[in-house]
Amino acid sequence: MRRYSALEAQVRALTARVAALEDRLEIARLMAAYGPAADSGSARATAALWAEDGRYDAGIVTLEGAPAIAEMIATDPHQRFIATGAAHIVSPPHIELHGDRATATCYQLVLLRNADTDDYRTWRVSANRWEWARTPTGWRITARYNRLLDGSDAARALFRTAFEEGNQA
Amino acid sequence: MRRYSALEAQVRALTARVAALEDRLEIARLMAAYGPAADSGSARATAALWAEDGRYDAGIVTLEGAPAIAEMIATDPHQRFIATGAAHIVSPPHIELHGDRATATCYQLVLLRNADTDDYRTWRVSANRWEWARTPTGWRITARYNRLLDGSDAARALFRTAFEEGNQA
Amino acid sequence: MRRYSALEAQVRALTARVAALEDRLEIARLMAAYGPAADSGSARATAALWAEDGRYDAGIVTLEGAPAIAEMIATDPHQRFIATGAAHIVSPPHIELHGDRATATCYQLVLLRNADTDDYRTWRVSANRWEWARTPTGWRITARYNRLLDGSDAARALFRTAFEEGNQA
Repeated sequence: MRRYSALEAQVRALTARVAALEDRLEIARLMAAYGPAADSGSARATAALWAEDGRYDAGIVTLEGAPAIAEMIATDPHQRFIATGAAHIVSPPHIELHGDRATATCYQLVLLRNADTDDYRTWRVSANRWEWARTPTGWRITARYNRLLDGSDAARALFRTAFEEGNQA
Repeated sequence: MRRYSALEAQVRALTARVAALEDRLEIARLMAAYGPAADSGSARATAALWAEDGRYDAGIVTLEGAPAIAEMIATDPHQRFIATGAAHIVSPPHIELHGDRATATCYQLVLLRNADTDDYRTWRVSANRWEWARTPTGWRITARYNRLLDGSDAARALFRTAFEEGNQA
Repeated sequence: MRRYSALEAQVRALTARVAALEDRLEIARLMAAYGPAADSGSARATAALWAEDGRYDAGIVTLEGAPAIAEMIATDPHQRFIATGAAHIVSPPHIELHGDRATATCYQLVLLRNADTDDYRTWRVSANRWEWARTPTGWRITARYNRLLDGSDAARALFRTAFEEGNQA
């Protein structure tokens, strides 16, 4: 019976490890949905990544709540960008998972098509921090911060947060 | 005995969850091989990502079958691009797994070296959809679609598919 | 009892599979830390990704040991780049795991801000190979190789290595 209980404990520990792997992959999967949702003008799918009261602090403007994020996608300048050809590309995230919360650090590139030269201008490259929470309907963004990598300290400070919080890189 | 059967059921359920995680990581791993295979001119390794009768609908041309994909890598203009310096970069994929099938939505960037200015031109930025199937020799691409993000609806429609199919983002 | 031992064996096998998934995700997570560490000028966090005697063969220069890597981050030209706005973006890696060793093949982009044109120049696009080892303090880089995709064979040879070693792509 002791041997049996030991096996039960092993399975319980393994189940927790599998759940943590699933959480990490799910957060990465949702982050990879942002660009395709935004660049197809899917306002509802984009906003659905956020918690209802989630925030997107884009640096130049802060959007409060999922409806404000849907509105941003549905209006100019975003609509004008995607009508010309735009790509919001989120780089592979560095995820720190803490139970029902997680943070992700990465870059976002915004590329805009230039029809005259038949190529793309790399208009924006930003430091990104995404804060996630587990909700009854799955992982949702509670806050996202975007800081332009323009040499000012704001973007570097955002990136440094990832290394000050964790015990290791 | 009942307690024992419950543990067996737990292990069976956990095994299925681990297999799904392995599938997701393997598909992402294979997608990260496309660029290095193509940009090193490895025609065989590139074509091996596809099922023998797989298709690559690149937008301007559709290649039918793995041999046609190998031929594309082995000939111009691809050979000319890599002789000057080219990068086919696939962004982190949004994967939907359904048993022995999967789809992945992402971007592809094509960067071409400009020796005169000592930098790279972002020549192509495309919406991508990859369809995968489990085969006796592993996961293989059955169809890949590439649509230039040039403001026309084709790329946006491809991206929207990801959100219309899934129950959630 | 036989049935019990079979279940123990299943749990043992599953534990090994979960450990391999954790290794893959951890290596990818650490690779996603390089850019944010480097672009925030976090010399200690950047160097901590390497083994103490790890090497970074950047193509034009080879840095031997973690202290040399910290020094590179803390000095010019790196400091000058990040003061103007720079992004070192590592693409999704193709990881091959072999017990306590692993290799990862990917791209690195170096983007530099141009304040005059309010955008970014794609200055460097390189083929990358990272060699990893499990150490008492976690996965660490033992060697990283960076080869500019400028049409010369060095970058293509680096990429080909990934396909010559593995049994499959």
